This record gives sequence, C-alpha cells and structure tokens, in this order.
Amino acid sequence: MIVVMKPNCSEAAIEHVLRFLEQEGFTGHLSRGVERTVIGVIGSVNVQNPPGKGMITPALGEALEAFPEVEGVFRVSKPYKLASREFHPDDTVVEVPVACVAGGTVRIGGPAVVMMAGPCTVENEKQLMTTAEAVRKAGAVILRGGAFKPSTSPYGFRGLGEEGLKLLAKASREFGMAVVTEVMTPADVPLVCEYADILQIGTRNMQNYMLLDEVGRAQKPVLLKRGMAATIEEWLLAAEYILSQGNRAVILCERGIRTFEKSTRNTMDLSAIPLVKQLSHLPIVADPSQGTGRRDLVAPMTLAAVAAGCDGLLIEVHPNPEVALKDGAQSLTTEQFAELMPRAEAVAQAIGRSFVTA
Amino acid sequence: MIVVMKPNCSEAAIEHVLRFLEQEGFTGHLSRGVERTVIGVIGSVNVQNPPGKGMITPALGEALEAFPEVEGVFRVSKPYKLASREFHPDDTVVEVPVACVAGGTVRIGGPAVVMMAGPCTVENEKQLMTTAEAVRKAGAVILRGGAFKPSTSPYGFRGLGEEGLKLLAKASREFGMAVVTEVMTPADVPLVCEYADILQIGTRNMQNYMLLDEVGRAQKPVLLKRGMAATIEEWLLAAEYILSQGNRAVILCERGIRTFEKSTRNTMDLSAIPLVKQLSHLPIVADPSQGTGRRDLVAPMTLAAVAAGCDGLLIEVHPNPEVALKDGAQSLTTEQFAELMPRAEAVAQAIGRSFVTA
Amino acid sequence: MIVVMKPNCSEAAIEHVLRFLEQEGFTGHLSRGVERTVIGVIGSVNVQNPPGKGMITPALGEALEAFPEVEGVFRVSKPYKLASREFHPDDTVVEVPVACVAGGTVRIGGPAVVMMAGPCTVENEKQLMTTAEAVRKAGAVILRGGAFKPSTSPYGFRGLGEEGLKLLAKASREFGMAVVTEVMTPADVPLVCEYADILQIGTRNMQNYMLLDEVGRAQKPVLLKRGMAATIEEWLLAAEYILSQGNRAVILCERGIRTFEKSTRNTMDLSAIPLVKQLSHLPIVADPSQGTGRRDLVAPMTLAAVAAGCDGLLIEVHPNPEVALKDGAQSLTTEQFAELMPRAEAVAQAIGRSFVTA
Amino acid sequence: MIVVMKPNCSEAAIEHVLRFLEQEGFTGHLSRGVERTVIGVIGSVNVQNPPGKGMITPALGEALEAFPEVEGVFRVSKPYKLASREFHPDDTVVEVPVACVAGGTVRIGGPAVVMMAGPCTVENEKQLMTTAEAVRKAGAVILRGGAFKPSTSPYGFRGLGEEGLKLLAKASREFGMAVVTEVMTPADVPLVCEYADILQIGTRNMQNYMLLDEVGRAQKPVLLKRGMAATIEEWLLAAEYILSQGNRAVILCERGIRTFEKSTRNTMDLSAIPLVKQLSHLPIVADPSQGTGRRDLVAPMTLAAVAAGCDGLLIEVHPNPEVALKDGAQSLTTEQFAELMPRAEAVAQAIGRSFVTA
Repeated sequence: MIVVMKPNCSEAAIEHVLRFLEQEGFTGHLSRGVERTVIGVIGSVNVQNPPGKGMITPALGEALEAFPEVEGVFRVSKPYKLASREFHPDDTVVEVPVACVAGGTVRIGGPAVVMMAGPCTVENEKQLMTTAEAVRKAGAVILRGGAFKPSTSPYGFRGLGEEGLKLLAKASREFGMAVVTEVMTPADVPLVCEYADILQIGTRNMQNYMLLDEVGRAQKPVLLKRGMAATIEEWLLAAEYILSQGNRAVILCERGIRTFEKSTRNTMDLSAIPLVKQLSHLPIVADPSQGTGRRDLVAPMTLAAVAAGCDGLLIEVHPNPEVALKDGAQSLTTEQFAELMPRAEAVAQAIGRSFVTA
Repeated sequence: MIVVMKPNCSEAAIEHVLRFLEQEGFTGHLSRGVERTVIGVIGSVNVQNPPGKGMITPALGEALEAFPEVEGVFRVSKPYKLASREFHPDDTVVEVPVACVAGGTVRIGGPAVVMMAGPCTVENEKQLMTTAEAVRKAGAVILRGGAFKPSTSPYGFRGLGEEGLKLLAKASREFGMAVVTEVMTPADVPLVCEYADILQIGTRNMQNYMLLDEVGRAQKPVLLKRGMAATIEEWLLAAEYILSQGNRAVILCERGIRTFEKSTRNTMDLSAIPLVKQLSHLPIVADPSQGTGRRDLVAPMTLAAVAAGCDGLLIEVHPNPEVALKDGAQSLTTEQFAELMPRAEAVAQAIGRSFVTA
Repeated sequence: MIVVMKPNCSEAAIEHVLRFLEQEGFTGHLSRGVERTVIGVIGSVNVQNPPGKGMITPALGEALEAFPEVEGVFRVSKPYKLASREFHPDDTVVEVPVACVAGGTVRIGGPAVVMMAGPCTVENEKQLMTTAEAVRKAGAVILRGGAFKPSTSPYGFRGLGEEGLKLLAKASREFGMAVVTEVMTPADVPLVCEYADILQIGTRNMQNYMLLDEVGRAQKPVLLKRGMAATIEEWLLAAEYILSQGNRAVILCERGIRTFEKSTRNTMDLSAIPLVKQLSHLPIVADPSQGTGRRDLVAPMTLAAVAAGCDGLLIEVHPNPEVALKDGAQSLTTEQFAELMPRAEAVAQAIGRSFVTA
Repeated sequence: MIVVMKPNCSEAAIEHVLRFLEQEGFTGHLSRGVERTVIGVIGSVNVQNPPGKGMITPALGEALEAFPEVEGVFRVSKPYKLASREFHPDDTVVEVPVACVAGGTVRIGGPAVVMMAGPCTVENEKQLMTTAEAVRKAGAVILRGGAFKPSTSPYGFRGLGEEGLKLLAKASREFGMAVVTEVMTPADVPLVCEYADILQIGTRNMQNYMLLDEVGRAQKPVLLKRGMAATIEEWLLAAEYILSQGNRAVILCERGIRTFEKSTRNTMDLSAIPLVKQLSHLPIVADPSQGTGRRDLVAPMTLAAVAAGCDGLLIEVHPNPEVALKDGAQSLTTEQFAELMPRAEAVAQAIGRSFVTA
C-alpha cells in the first residue's frame, strides 16, 4: 500500500502516519518526490500466514485515508488471498458427481467445457422433464432451474420452493444430470443442499455476506454470479468469503453488468473471463441468457464466451418460451439449443478444448 | 402496456398475441401504423383491487417479449402500486418516538427536516457516547451507528453485533435519541427490533427479497437505502415489497450510485429526491457520507440535498476519524458536524422549511 | 411513436396533442386504458421518401414531451433509416483496393474476416516499416497507424501529422496493404484522403457532426468507432449522418464502452456485434486493443470477437511496445501477433468463415 | 508516479525500468515490500517550468505499463498543471462585459452567482426577444441560446447558424445582456467570436482537441461543458488544452453524466462542484436543464446547485415550450423562470452569497 501525502504537508503529519503504521504492525518506507511525499506500507503478508493475519486490508486503507494530510492511498497487493492465483498457482478444478458421464464425475475448470442448461424457473413437472430430456440429449450434463426465484416485483412469480427442488431432484435421477439451483437466504441453505449438487448465488446476493458465510460452511460447490454492478475485485472478495469459511469449491459466473446501453438487458463483460483466469485459480463460466436478455443474442455470445476461454455455460431453455413464467424472452427453444451445441463444440475444438459429454 | 409487433408481422402473430391477452384477462387494443402494428394492453388495475390483482406486471411484459414476432414492449403504468403517488396522493409521514423532542415524536416526511448522525460503526462505549452526546448537542435527534456491518472483505471488521445494539440502546436512553441501525439478514430482524427504532436496509441488500419480506412484517419503520446500481423504479419496487407485507412506514435513502467517476466513492443522484417526491408519497432522506466517500464533500452535499428537498439526512461523525475502524475518510469530526448544522438550517429556512429540534 | 398522457388528463389536453399532430402532418390514434390514455402517432415514413421527409424524428418526441399533460413518449420505429436493415435488407459490403490480395480488392462485410493491424501511432519510418512487414507476413492486409492522434493531455504526443501520412503511404506501396488512419477535424479530410484508403473516426469524435458531414462527402470508406459512452442507437445515428451525405461505405467498429470496472480500460461490448448485424446492414469490426487496454487480453478477445461474428479486427502491434510513444501497454509484439493469427483463423473456420489472405 | 512490479520479478527487470527512467530524465526510487517491489518516479515538475516540460504525463505512465514485468502504475501528481489549484492557488475570476450591470462587467467566479438563461435554440426573432426580455426582467444577466446545435439525428434541426448569431447580438444590444453560444468546429470560431461574449464548448466536443486548441487561441472566455462520460480529471485536462494555448478565461460547466438511470436524461453530479473547487481555481457553473432533461426537476436542482457552491447557472427558458424546436421538455416557461429566481436568491443568501443583479 502506498500512502500519498498532500503537497507541502508538515513533518509532523508524516511522523503521525509513520507512528500509526508502526502501532498496527507495519513498516513505513518514506520517499520524497518533488511535489509530494509518499510512504510505502510494508506488511507481513505471506501465504503461510492464516488468512487475514498481517494483511494489508481495505480497512487499513480507509483508516489512512482519514488522516487529514493524506491525499490518497493506492493498494499494491490484492485484497483477496485464497482466491488469488499467487496463493494457489494451479487451476482449481471443481468436481461434481454426474451419473450420466463416464466415471460419474464432471470436472469444472479442467480442459473440457461444461454445458449447464434448463429452464429459468421450474414451473411444473412436464415443463421441467421435457426441457431436461431435450438439453440432456443435446449435450448438457448439468441441469439448471430455479425453485427460489428473485423477482423485481413483489407481485411476480417467486418460484415453487421446495416443490421445485423435488422436481429438480426427480429430473436429476431420471436423466443422470447434476442440478444447479439458486439459494437466496441463509435459512434455506440446508434445504437446498438436500436436493442440489451446486448452490447458485444470484447476482443480487453477491454481497449478501451472511449467505456467503453460510454456503462457505456447506459441503457443496457454489456457483457465484457476479453482481450486476460489481467490479472484478469485489467479485473475487465475495469468493474469498466462501473460501475463507473452508469451502474451496467455488465457480465464478459472468452474467453481464449494468451499463448505460438500453438495447440489451446487461452488457456481458467477456474480458472478465481471461482476466479472472490471470488473477485467480477458480473456474469461470458464462451465462449468455442473463447476460444479454435476448434470445437472438444467446447463440453468438455462447460462441464468443467459449472462444474467450470460459469453463462452462449456463443457458436458459424452455420448450415453449412464450408461456414461460419468467424470462421467456431470453430462453432458447429446445430446437435452438440442439442447434447451438455442435456450433459451440466446433469453437471449443478450434481453441484446443472440447465439451464434457455423456 | 404497449406491445410493438415486428414490421410486416403476420396476421396470425397478431391474433396470437390478442388471444394470449384475452386468456390472461386483459383487453388488446389494435393500432396499425405505417411501419408497425402496436397493441395497447388494457388491464383492470385500480386502487380498490388487492395488490397484484389484475396488475400489468413486469412478468406480463416478459411473457409478451418472448413472442417471436413481438419487437418490444413498453410499460405505460408504473409497476408499483402501494408506493406510488397515484395510489396514495398525500405524503406519508413516518412517526418515530424520540424522547428528546417536544411531544416525544419525530415526523419524517413532514415539513421539518430530520438530522440523523453518529458513527459509521459502533466501536466501543466511549466512542459511541462521545459521538452521541456531540451530535445531540449540535442538533441531531436520531442516532445512527452500525452494529452489523457489511464489509467488502471477509477480513474487515464486521461490527460488534448484539453488543453494539446494546450500546446503541444505552446511548438512546442517555441522550433521548431514537436509533437507526442496519439489519443484514432475516434471522436478525427480531433481535434488531428489540434495540432499534428504525431498521436500516443497506445498499447491498436492497434486493435481498427475503429480508425485505421480513422487515415488511416487523412493527418498526424501515429506512431503505438505494442499491448502488438500482434504478429509481427498482428502488420503489423494493419499497413495494415492504409495503405489501403490511408495513407502511418506509423511508427511502439516496446514498449515491455507481458510475465511471473515480474521484468520489459514489455519485450522489440528488435529482432522485424531487423525482421520488413526484412518483411516490414516501419520505426520502440523503446520506452524503456514503454518497461521496469524502469528508470534504459532506458539507456542500448536505446543503445541496436540503435545497433539493430531502426530508432528512444521515451523516457519519466520529470523534477521531483517523482511528475509526471503518470509513474514517468520510466521517466528519464532531466539530465539523457542529459547524455544519446552522448552515444546513439556513438553507432549510431559505426554502421554507426548518430542522426538527429537541 | 406512442404518446402516454398523464392519468386523469383533461379532454382538452388530448385534443391539444391531436391537433398538434395533425398540423405537423401526422395522424393520432387514440386508445383509452384504465389508468391512462395513449395516442399512437402514425407518420408517413417509407423507404421511397427522401431521407428525413415525413419521419418520426427524435425532435418530434421532444416536442411532445414538452406538453404539460404528456407523461412520456415511446419511439416505435427506428430513428435512423439509411443505416437500418429494414431500409437495406442485404449486407453492405465495403470494397477497398488492396494490392497484395488476389483481385486487388478486399471486401469488408462479406464472408471473409479482414485483419487490420499496425502500430497505434506512426513514430518513425523504421518502426512503421518493421511493423508493417511483420503484420503483412503474419496475415494482415490492411495497415492501421495514427498520424493525427487524440491525446487526453495537451502535453502528450499528438502524432507526426502529414509526415506520418507519407510514411503510411510508403508502407502501403511497399507491402501492398491498404491504409486506415484517423482524421480528427473537417479541415484535414482532404489531406487524409490523399494518403489513406479508409478514414477512421475516433471514439471521441463519434458525435462531431461537422466531421461526420465532411467524411460523408468524401469518396473514401469510413471506419466509425463507437463513442465510449454511446448507445448503439446513437452510433447508428452517427452512421446515418455519413450515409445521408451520400457516402454509403461505412464500417462500424466496436472498441469498448466506459463502465464502472477499473481493471480494464474499457468494457468490450461484444453483444453489439450480433445486435448491429440485426439492426443494420453495415459491416462491423472489433478493436480488442482499445477495447481492453491490456496486451494480455487482446488474444482472447480477438478470438471472442471472431466467434461473435465480427467482419474484421483492428489490432495494435509494435516491434518494441516498451518504447512506444502511445498505448504500449495494449500493443502486441510482432511475435505475439504472428502467434495469434492462426488461432483466429481456426475460430473463423469453426463458425464457417475464413480470413482474407494475400 | 509509482511503478508496481509484478511479484517475484527479476532484478534485471527492475534495472530495466530504472535505466529507462534515467534516460527520460527522471529518478527512480526503489522500495522493496514483502510481496512486491515498487519504484517511485521523481520528476522535476515545478510551476516555474514551462508547461509540459519535465512533467510526469499520462504518456509516461502508458510507457511504463508496457513493460512486461510491470504490474501497474499509479499517478501521484495531477496530470494537469495550469488548471490546478496548486499552480494557481487563488480563484480565477472571468470577467465578461455586460451592459446592463453596474460597472459594465460581470465577474464569474467571484462572490456573486451569475444567472445565464434563454432558449435552448434560437428559432426566430420573436421567440428570442420575448425570452430575452423575460429572463432579463427576472434577473438573468447573460443570454444563452444555440445558433449551431448538435443534433443526435441528421434529420433534426441544427440551428439557424449565422442568422441565429445575429439575432443573439440584437437581443444582446436591446437588453444589455452578454451572450453565450456554442461553437462546434474550429472553422466557425472566428465567426462566433464576432457575435458572442462567451464561447460554449458542448458536451460532445469536450475532447475535440482541435476545437479546444482553436478556442484556446481566441480572445473570448470559454464555457467548457463536461463530456457526458468524462471523468473530472479528463475535464480538467480538456481545460488544460485551452489554458495551455494562452486563454486563461475558462469556465467549467457541470451538465450531467451518463449512468444506467433511465428516468432522467442525465445524472447531475453536483459533488463535482465542490470537488472542482478544490482541485482547480477555475469557476464552475451548472446546467440543470441538460442535467436532468425534465422541466419539473430544473427548479430543485437549481437550488441544489447553488447550495453546492456553483458560480452560475445555465437554464433553458422558452415562452412556449410545447412548440420549441428542441428540448422543449426541459425548458421552463418564462413564468416558471420568474418564480424560480427569488427562490435561488434565497438559497444563495443562506450560504452567504448573492446573485449578480442588473
């Protein structure tokens, strides 16, 4: 961390900062420029330390910014540790038991790309089974589907709840797929764990810290969607919450961010995929359905996400999007999904990867 | 709601939409332009209906957008009802019991502006008591202070929890002030209700729907901060969640939104104040500490928020910001706060209002 | 265009709007809902009309929004005409004479993808010739390079001017490549036309309307970069400026938009590629160098842009990025560029396209 | 400037950076942390130097970012000099000759606030004279009005050009007001200088560098609007362009920035007012008409801007907004403007200022 003092600040002010750093267990390293004096803060971070111990945290920066003669503070080291590539140089591979694949396990974050597909929302048995069968046949190995649904309006459909979870479990057994589904509040974590293989944290809950703590204590992989206005750093700090509770099976999911552009629901930030790969060891998947909000953009953005290096995809499919209870406008039909799979496989091959197949 | 069909869409497609609307209990009103056909959707919304019944909801729009020959959907009526000025033409005034004022009650949303001040975070008894005494003396009637604190990093300080609540209650008794403090998760609502007079929902939890439901069932006023990337419509829909559970004492709080500008922590959207006053009957307050993230901008933005018509202010004050555990850089000293109060009162008078005084 | 009246507006106000529309040569079509009355505005737009004649323009919307009992106005038809896919259903293919390719012509917007590469800025003969030779050898057929450079600071390097243009022309002759280079002000258009094959309009000038007019009157293709905070609609309206002056050879270029994310210089909006393909007949290329601002993200975003369907790429290459006068951090080395080409070709093949080759 | 090296970078890489700095005339000051090595760059900037000489420019930062073992670069000193408060500690006061005021001069940036009002666009003599008379009578001393108008659509009204300038000059003579009007391209600067007292640079041209150069060589004050997606730093760098050409009479104008919020045309960033006052000595005015795009928000945002400390206001007024050729929805009627003036004066008094009066 670098502390920049105001121009012409007093020697007493510099002393004040240095003494504060010493008290807090850091060393200050003074450097006087023509216009300003800067103080380098040297901590004792290293990967042998327990998490949080001796770390130069955002809180230290905030404290230093409060000094009246400090002009600004720049962080030099990353504020996350367990999520960082420096701490864990090798790729994390999250293993998920999936009956339909050879060996019974899907590896997310390994060489092969994983297709997760299904309806936005579980509406009824027929809709779910039809969709599951179709996406399974076309090549998906993990079934997505919402039982607890965040709805912007209190008058919207909020999901079937436990009944939806049971239907997901039934489809899972029938088609040999794993299930990824959202959990919205700490109290529901045990229930969702009973039925799901991967716990999804939605975009609105990326900074619901008590929920992050709770899934961090669960024994299931977590798919953590990026907050709709979260920086990549904040996203990795949210992952750090889960990791620091002991759950190391975190999958990141880019699902678009909020910008001024109005013709798409969100703006997919595909550069986040290679950037996260550099900063972190965690696998990253893409959700082009939420990312664009438009069915006609799902296929090209799926291909682009594969080319950018994603480890998996989350795609909304509905047998009859016009009567979907939620987000029909962004759901592919089962036919459109079946047409997309071989095109996505071709792009994966072009970059030296393949899709996980059953 | 207006449905715009694609240019040259078939008659069958138009019929399809009209039949769907009829099934859902709406009337479609056809209008053929030179390039495109549009269908006006006429619902049966009226204020006598129970909430949600017969409403043209976002979900209806999503369903219509899923039709392949529909180009787009425009909403004409507001998606919120209980929060709208149309439903409730008179200003809502939220009453809070405050021992130190004449009559024992502060009215938020009435003619007088309400000052709420205190530390970002409750750190210890001495810090809280010193701050409470100082802000009370300078003119604040409600004490703010965090016992449960959202922290971007899992290694940051997350608050004293119940101990912090107890200290707040003690300060409240000692200085005759009401207490506003954050609640972060549904399970904590009963506990926070025991100690606090106003439940605060933080910016990261504006769309934590289960938390909104829970505070909607509580018997305490709720101060609902705007999400850092929430539109005004989404914010009013979040308020609608609380209102629709029966709790009509909702106070909105503008605290800055996220933009590309880097020199402030957030960009305060002061135009939200007069705009919310038109769209809704709910009171609205401003938080210039979070809104700017910089102590030196708190005073001018306080004056500006008063001039823009806010019903109250939430200001962070710390006896010694340099050693604050959180957000010291945006906290005023007790002296700075005392200097600010008469300036804010002068602006209030200039627009024909005053501050609530003890 | 749909005009939404305020709830409970008077009959006189409705009459007022209808009379205004009649005067302006439009027909108003009344539709009364439960809460609000809406008026459909029917114009006489058709593709036989001269541009602008009888069009429902943004200005008409602004006029209607000024009526005190009008709540809002929704546009139904697109505000651009010549740029729209509806006006011109077939893809526009922009032809550029390029000596090094068979037939002497490169077609931008046809089946094959076009690689344009070169230094950000022309610095001197050696730098330009080395780069041109290397990118030509690796597969680029169009040479990019700035002679007039926009610089955020007045103290930065602003390009070699005409000397830079002469060097570009020399490299063009030597390696048989076409040249694309920026023109920053109307007065320079004739000069740049002497040396360049494609006139580039930079992101800061997307709404420099007098410059758009001027290049609209030139006899050279124009590469129009998206403004850094421009919506897709505004971008197509900027293209409309050029088209309406008679120049139909417009190439759009996605180069990233400004968001709150700080770890990349811009956020590339790759969904703009398939979306523009639907809305417009114009070719679209991508600039992953400006789009990301980071050398390490150029390769994956190049592959992603190809997979998303772009018609070409603009990539910054420098023989020695560390001593580049501008934007070295986002320039590939010549070796990195040579490694990227076959990977981009593999992705193009995977989606059924190829790259233009010499 | 601080250069942060990648963790575990080689000694050779550090040497490489140090040698480069030395060559460029800077001194590198090494500081080794636990995780990373940082290098402080010490320049020779001082206010006696000619502008640009020895400055640590953005270009130096870009060059350093291009080194493969450099992780990032932080700027410590401001990239602008002439615009900075450090260079020029006292407030700049821009003097404009105005016949109607005592002494014949209005001082923008002094203790008194200046009201500039008039139509968005000059439409005809009657409209302009009516408006000028009304705003003059109500208290405005400077007349605004567009003769050259940027229009998002090529089919929109683009202003009366020189005829509009002549009408402005006539109104100026008749009512003793100064005139501020936009100039859009370098070639028009001499013409606009003949008729106008203040040259306005519009939001779309904030980074039209050749236009900035040209008005920097003119002998008239320049009102520089903030670009709709410009950071405060970029805005001050645009001012630096003008200042560095010798024109020291620059007035900044906050007019709203682009965000995700859709209910207002722009989001006014009022915190820019006190922040600019700290960073720079230049006067700053606010444009609540463009800033909100809604007539009903102009009055509260005018009051808020005064409370935040602006030195002046730019307000659109039209005798009959419903028939305005541009931006009627954001224009006040002459009556609304007359009602607003005393309210704005009351707020000015509350903060110890007044309005310039005739």
